[in-house]
This record gives sequence, structure tokens and C-alpha cells, in this order.
Amino acid sequence: MNGVIALDWGTTSLRAYWLEAGNIRESRAHPWGIRQLPEGGFNVALADITAGWPRLPRLACGMVGSRQGWREVPYLELPATTAQFGRNLGSVRADDGLDVHIVCGLRNPRGPDVMRGEETQLMGALSRQPSLAAQSTWMLPGTHSKWVSVRDGAVTDFCTLMTGELFALLQQHSILAANNAGAVADPDAFARGVIAARESGAAGALSRLFSARALLLDGALPASSVPDYLSGLLIGEELRSALATGRFDHDNPLQLIGDAALCARYRSAASHFALEVSESVIDAAAYGLWQIACYAQLVDAGSSDVFKGVPSC
Amino acid sequence: MNGVIALDWGTTSLRAYWLEAGNIRESRAHPWGIRQLPEGGFNVALADITAGWPRLPRLACGMVGSRQGWREVPYLELPATTAQFGRNLGSVRADDGLDVHIVCGLRNPRGPDVMRGEETQLMGALSRQPSLAAQSTWMLPGTHSKWVSVRDGAVTDFCTLMTGELFALLQQHSILAANNAGAVADPDAFARGVIAARESGAAGALSRLFSARALLLDGALPASSVPDYLSGLLIGEELRSALATGRFDHDNPLQLIGDAALCARYRSAASHFALEVSESVIDAAAYGLWQIACYAQLVDAGSSDVFKGVPSC
Repeated sequence: MNGVIALDWGTTSLRAYWLEAGNIRESRAHPWGIRQLPEGGFNVALADITAGWPRLPRLACGMVGSRQGWREVPYLELPATTAQFGRNLGSVRADDGLDVHIVCGLRNPRGPDVMRGEETQLMGALSRQPSLAAQSTWMLPGTHSKWVSVRDGAVTDFCTLMTGELFALLQQHSILAANNAGAVADPDAFARGVIAARESGAAGALSRLFSARALLLDGALPASSVPDYLSGLLIGEELRSALATGRFDHDNPLQLIGDAALCARYRSAASHFALEVSESVIDAAAYGLWQIACYAQLVDAGSSDVFKGVPSC
Repeated sequence: MNGVIALDWGTTSLRAYWLEAGNIRESRAHPWGIRQLPEGGFNVALADITAGWPRLPRLACGMVGSRQGWREVPYLELPATTAQFGRNLGSVRADDGLDVHIVCGLRNPRGPDVMRGEETQLMGALSRQPSLAAQSTWMLPGTHSKWVSVRDGAVTDFCTLMTGELFALLQQHSILAANNAGAVADPDAFARGVIAARESGAAGALSRLFSARALLLDGALPASSVPDYLSGLLIGEELRSALATGRFDHDNPLQLIGDAALCARYRSAASHFALEVSESVIDAAAYGLWQIACYAQLVDAGSSDVFKGVPSC
């Protein structure tokens, strides 16, 4: 059987895919990120989430390869291609006697900056849209958003913005959190936040954070709408900042990978900057793990479209 | 006796001054901010901190006049002078039968933005340096830093930056907080953070926050130095942002009011921007309360220098 068990193993979640000939045959998810493993740890989580699936080669990506993970796999340096990821796997022997191979993370010496897991999602997304391998800019929103530049099939640059974590901190612990118990979706408040960020110009939207408090005191923003205003302000700041660096521009649509609801927020915010943003790619990690498994010869690349568009090295 | 009991009553602290003829005769401090009052509340805190002092007119500033305070006093709108503060006091009758007068806060309709307490510190600092009343830019660092423009003896503009609160949030609750238990003073790490913020340009230093994590993983920043790096990054961002707005420039020294140690950090950060920054004014709130008490005729202005340099209205 030409298949692989693909594991997208992050800080707070574990997603497993049974892949056959590059297609998803079955998938499962548990909140067993590396910080919240079940009793028995990695081995128990793995056995449980793959129960009943065949004994196939296993390949994992994400924080499972970090210092706090199952086995630390050193970062690969930029620039990096799918083939290089395939040649630089780490591995750990599981209690069931089979190895779990682990994709290394990626390090940007400029910055410096690091990622673990997003490189695999990106490789998956590129395999679904090979025409973008020549030149494209990608954005993976989340707790730590990643902005990634691709040239000639390789990741050539990236940087991390802590937008999601900042939002959570301000929401849960700051003065702006007061009275926010009953958050209500408010697209107008979101748009207002985005526009405030855009209008902040080179000063940046940190200088506007307190407006969430002042608008509330003014009676101009209901407490229940503060979260959406803040979300718009921080996502808008991310776009403003990326435009200011020249990381992308109005001529090249931004490619999104990630959670559909979160990507929809970025798409909505981008409209206030007159920016074109792609639909988001689904199950990108699974497709990326398949590609990397092919290059690592864990599966037979001949039966998949791995070499289409993504240059081999 | 030509005196007043001046109360600087904020969210987390209460400072009381017995003033005579514009001079501080005695001062006391307790951590009895409006969010951490002793049992018995405002009346008990007042009675305790003024125990043994004469029954003089009492004037308070700060969050004591907010919705969560002892008595809400509506904000005054910009532009505002010391005389206007004197004419717009609120008051509450204490259990001892005497009033506590309370200085109103200040609202900037552009923004919008608000302050409570800083306006009084500013009036005090202006009374000590009357030549600055014509035109000056002031900075009051803290949990919520205030940047204030003064023209012709009036506050004409201000804005709030949540630098101190952001630092505390990131330090206590974020991924950057991990392993920071043993923070150590590291002036080089502070300077490195300031320079990273300066170099972030129009993109802004939010785009560099994650560098604190990446440098740590790289072994290029000890965990114990992350707090000073973060402090430098956030204070540097505040200066970078203020320069970008044109809020102040290299021709006019920035005037500081506030905690000596915190002001020293801003002065150190400013040196990396080749900016001139004044020494900080001490006990500014006490002198401001005296000035406002004079205008409110709670004390005899003739015995102080209240009218020197600060235009009357």
C-alpha cells in the first residue's frame, strides 16, 4: 500500500491523516498538543489517534520536533526546498517498534526567526498550486502569524508576528478586557479597528490601542464590541506593517493558509487596504507531509504529483 | 494656615502631601489605589493617611475621580489650562464632615483619548518651569504613557500608549515570559531592544516582538535578559512611533515627568535616537494640586508663585 500516516502535531492540537497516493483517506483530531498530552505522553497519543489504521511509515511536523517536543530536530536554514526537508528528517522510535519521522523546523538567520510546522503547510499549499512556486507571498495567520516569501520553489524569507497571542493577552488580561464577558460579533467594530490601524500610518497601531478604552468610556463602542474592534486593529496593523516593509504589494495577491474563519478576518481586513487575498488552502499540512514523505522516499513519489511544479534539488 | 492636603490617588497607589504656601511639609504613601482600598474604603484610607495632620482643604487627582473612583468628575475637553481645572472641581463629603475636592480628568476629542491625574502632574511641572508654558512636549511614562503637547499655557493635544501594560502582559503571560523567572538587569540587552525598534522603521516594532523568542532559542540572548530586551524594544517603539507622528522632534527636548528609574530608561533609549530628554520633575502631582487649589481659591494664591509664567484665564 503506497501510504503514510501524517501527523500535524502542534502546541495545542494533534491532527492525524491516513494518506494514500497523495490523497486523504481518513483524518482525526485531538487537543493533544505537546503541552497537553494524555497520560502516557506521546506514545499513548500516537497509539490512540492511529488506532485501527495500518502500520505505515509515519511522518510528523510541528512543535513535536522542538526542544519541548518528542525529539528535537535542528532547524534547517533558509533558503529551503521540499527536497531539503525530505533529506533532513529526525526520527524517534515509538513504543510500537516503528519510527516516527519528524520534519525539521526552519530558521531565518536574518531576524533571527524560526518556524515549526508552517514550512510543511507551505510545501503542501505549493503542491496544490504549482504555478506559485516561482514567486509568491504567503501568510499563515494564527497565534504567531508567519509571512513567507517563496522564490524558485524555495522559502527565501519569513517573519513572525505575534498578532494572535497579543489579541489573546489584551482580551484576557489587559484593561481593555474589562467588561468584555459578553463578546458579540460586530463586523462594523472590526472594520473600525482595521481602519484605525491603516490610518495610524508610520506611527503604527500600538499608538491606537488605548482608543479601545477611550471609545468605551465615550459610549462610542459597546463593551461587547471591544473584542472585534481590537481584532480589527491588530490584524489591520499586521497588514499595514507588512505593506510598509514591502513584504508584499498590490500587484501580487497574498496567499492565505489556515483556519477558514481566521482567514476570512484577514480577507475582510485586506479589503480596507484594497489588497487581493486568495482563498485559504485546506489540509495544507497533510499535503505537505505527503510531499516531504515522497522526497524522503518513505512513499513512492511516482504515484503522486509531487514533482509537478515544485523543482527537485 | 495657608495650606492644603493634596492627594494623588491612582489605581494602585495613594500619595498624600501636606502643603504649606506651595511647599511640601510632609508626604506619605500607601498602596491604597482605588482598586486595592483598605477595609472601610475611601474614608478609612483618607483618615489613616492624613492622621495627625490639620483640618485643611483637601484636593485629590487621579482615578479617584473616575467611574470606579470615589466620585465621578466629568472630563474637561481640550484645550485646558490650570485655571480651568480650578473651576471644574467635583467634590464628595467624607465621613469626617469635610469635603474632598477632586480634579476632573481631561478628554481629547481627537483620538478619542482620556487621562486622569497626569494633567495635574503636568500643571505642577509647568509651575516649576514656567518658561516651558509657551511651547513644550511632555512625556509621562507608566502603565499607560501619556504624550502631551502644551501651547500658550494650555494642554492642546495628548495621546496614550499602553507601553507599560504591554510590557507587563508579555512578561507575565506570553511565550516570551517562559523561563524569565530570574530576570537580571542587562543594559546591553536593553540597548539591543531599543535599536531593533528604531531599525524596524515604518513597519514598527510589533514585527520584532518574536525576535525575543528567536534570540533565546538561538542562544544569543540569555533568558534572564529577555525582560530588558523587551523593555528596550517597547520603549524604543514608543519613541520611534512618536517621532513618526511628528509629535516631537530633534529641535525641542522632550520633558519627562515620572518615576526616576523609569524616566532613566526613557532617557537611555532616547540617546539611541540622538534625542535630548530633560531630567524628570519630582513630586509634580503635589505642585499641580497646589496650583489648582490656588485657582479654585481653596488656598491663598498670593502666597505662592502660581501666577508666575502660567497665564491666568
